[in-house]
Amino acid sequence: MATTYIAADLGGTQIRTGRFDHNLNLLQRENTLTRANDGLAPTLERLMTYIDKVMPSDRRDAAGIGISSPGPLNPKTGVIIAPPNLPGWHDVPLADIISAEFGLPVFVGNDANVAALAEASKGAAQGHRHVVYITISTGIGSGVICDGRLLTGRGGLAAELGHMPILVGDECVSSVELEAAGPAIARRARQAIAAGRQTTITELVGGELAHVDAQVVGAAAAAGDALAIELLAYAGRIIGLAIVAALHLFNPEIVVLGGGVTKTGALLFDPMRATVKQHVLDESYLDGLRIESAALGGDVALVGAAALAATDGGNMDISALDKLF
Amino acid sequence: MATTYIAADLGGTQIRTGRFDHNLNLLQRENTLTRANDGLAPTLERLMTYIDKVMPSDRRDAAGIGISSPGPLNPKTGVIIAPPNLPGWHDVPLADIISAEFGLPVFVGNDANVAALAEASKGAAQGHRHVVYITISTGIGSGVICDGRLLTGRGGLAAELGHMPILVGDECVSSVELEAAGPAIARRARQAIAAGRQTTITELVGGELAHVDAQVVGAAAAAGDALAIELLAYAGRIIGLAIVAALHLFNPEIVVLGGGVTKTGALLFDPMRATVKQHVLDESYLDGLRIESAALGGDVALVGAAALAATDGGNMDISALDKLF
Repeated sequence: MATTYIAADLGGTQIRTGRFDHNLNLLQRENTLTRANDGLAPTLERLMTYIDKVMPSDRRDAAGIGISSPGPLNPKTGVIIAPPNLPGWHDVPLADIISAEFGLPVFVGNDANVAALAEASKGAAQGHRHVVYITISTGIGSGVICDGRLLTGRGGLAAELGHMPILVGDECVSSVELEAAGPAIARRARQAIAAGRQTTITELVGGELAHVDAQVVGAAAAAGDALAIELLAYAGRIIGLAIVAALHLFNPEIVVLGGGVTKTGALLFDPMRATVKQHVLDESYLDGLRIESAALGGDVALVGAAALAATDGGNMDISALDKLF
Repeated sequence: MATTYIAADLGGTQIRTGRFDHNLNLLQRENTLTRANDGLAPTLERLMTYIDKVMPSDRRDAAGIGISSPGPLNPKTGVIIAPPNLPGWHDVPLADIISAEFGLPVFVGNDANVAALAEASKGAAQGHRHVVYITISTGIGSGVICDGRLLTGRGGLAAELGHMPILVGDECVSSVELEAAGPAIARRARQAIAAGRQTTITELVGGELAHVDAQVVGAAAAAGDALAIELLAYAGRIIGLAIVAALHLFNPEIVVLGGGVTKTGALLFDPMRATVKQHVLDESYLDGLRIESAALGGDVALVGAAALAATDGGNMDISALDKLF
């Protein structure tokens, strides 16, 4: 019986591939630059070359291939629709192409959903059946596991917590991502500086406002800068409201938070937790609820892609993975 | 083989019970006043009496009992937590009590989830596997079916779209329900009138502001009153944003809208649809999407309770129901 899973992480910057055993332990990994600007065909070629590098010597030992890709994509059909960071990719039937090349079942998932599956399989949410995963970096991505199964919706477009609309002011509609992701934190910092606000952020970027990013704001906040602390608190509050929405909608056992912006730590997390406590409908949503940082590091997409292959694209109950271990 | 389902709708005003055949056709119905103010024991007694009235002569013909109840409740344990309109009910193990009395499996669901199951079984969403149901009346309730299964979460508290927090102004946190349910529409009408706004609503209630409700606002709007039209448009816009959130989170095939406030028709629905179109992340969420009015009338809770019994409390895939038909 084939008990090896092949995983690929197709990112805007890097292509990473790996071979996993039946316990989802990583046996071999490879990586190369995506060089997405070369266009579709060379990138596909490179992806196939690096999948081939991690194939077992006897291909029959491989049970399937899981691929993490930037969205939007349709996990039911394996078609990549039009990722902003993969120029030239439009409606690419990636699963069919890779399956034809290697003669194996191929499952494709968007990076946030795949990461959710990874955290539920081998990370912070291992053993849980009701999981909300949120990653906060240049965007806000999320993945949800409802009663053991990855939530994908009709066309694989579900679980976009970052795109929940929120009202700001009586008229202006914004979204969680537009208010709380890294670029939003940087934008608010630049606006405050342009309006004459005194802050050490200005010194940290040598007066070059274009260099302000969430990491710089985090550093300034850690050093006690008042504006930077306010900005992280605002982002924390918005993320807290998104978590409240997630609790009311999914009633999860655990919320896992990943992504670069979460590295800012307590200055983000404390206002976030306070907002959750203040605005949750009922204490029962918090009974036994855990809100935790993601446990898997740089291998999260590979582990998740292997889990995707091991659960038929997330369609199988994740308890099937426990049986593997 | 037992092929009859017993259904009960425990409401704040009425108790209704029914016997259904294996196709979920209603064979017999009974009803009585709940008289909830009598307290727990008399209400329970009345519920059991009216369940008994619809029992088949040979009790072995009944496969199970489904009960629709006001929430909060835990559908996994069948415990009613503390519904506002059932005074004296605190942590009542309703499923166990009814099961002990009748010797049958008993499944309990909150009214909005049960209605979602009803619409997906025999109503507007029949044949669909990805369904969002929203009912807008004195509150906003909702139920979600994800890939054929009722979304309940860890403790049965999921799918509360009405309790999604939304920011109004930069600081004030409100919710969909607090901005768009019937009482919110009435509150805004009273506020505008108190602020001196001229409107026919004042005449419709004979100057008695306490009598303003969403139905009166609906009547005034239908007759062309400018304030009333504005108020419905605002509610429609908020509901539209809730639907946008639901599309991004659940990527459904169909959104079903029920409840008294939806009777106001186009003056609510047109701004709602315009908001959905304006704020949806991507056209692909709208591909083939249907937004429809609920199809089941007063029997919705009974039909849903029968469907609850037929799907082991919503845990089975709803395609199991199709096999029944």
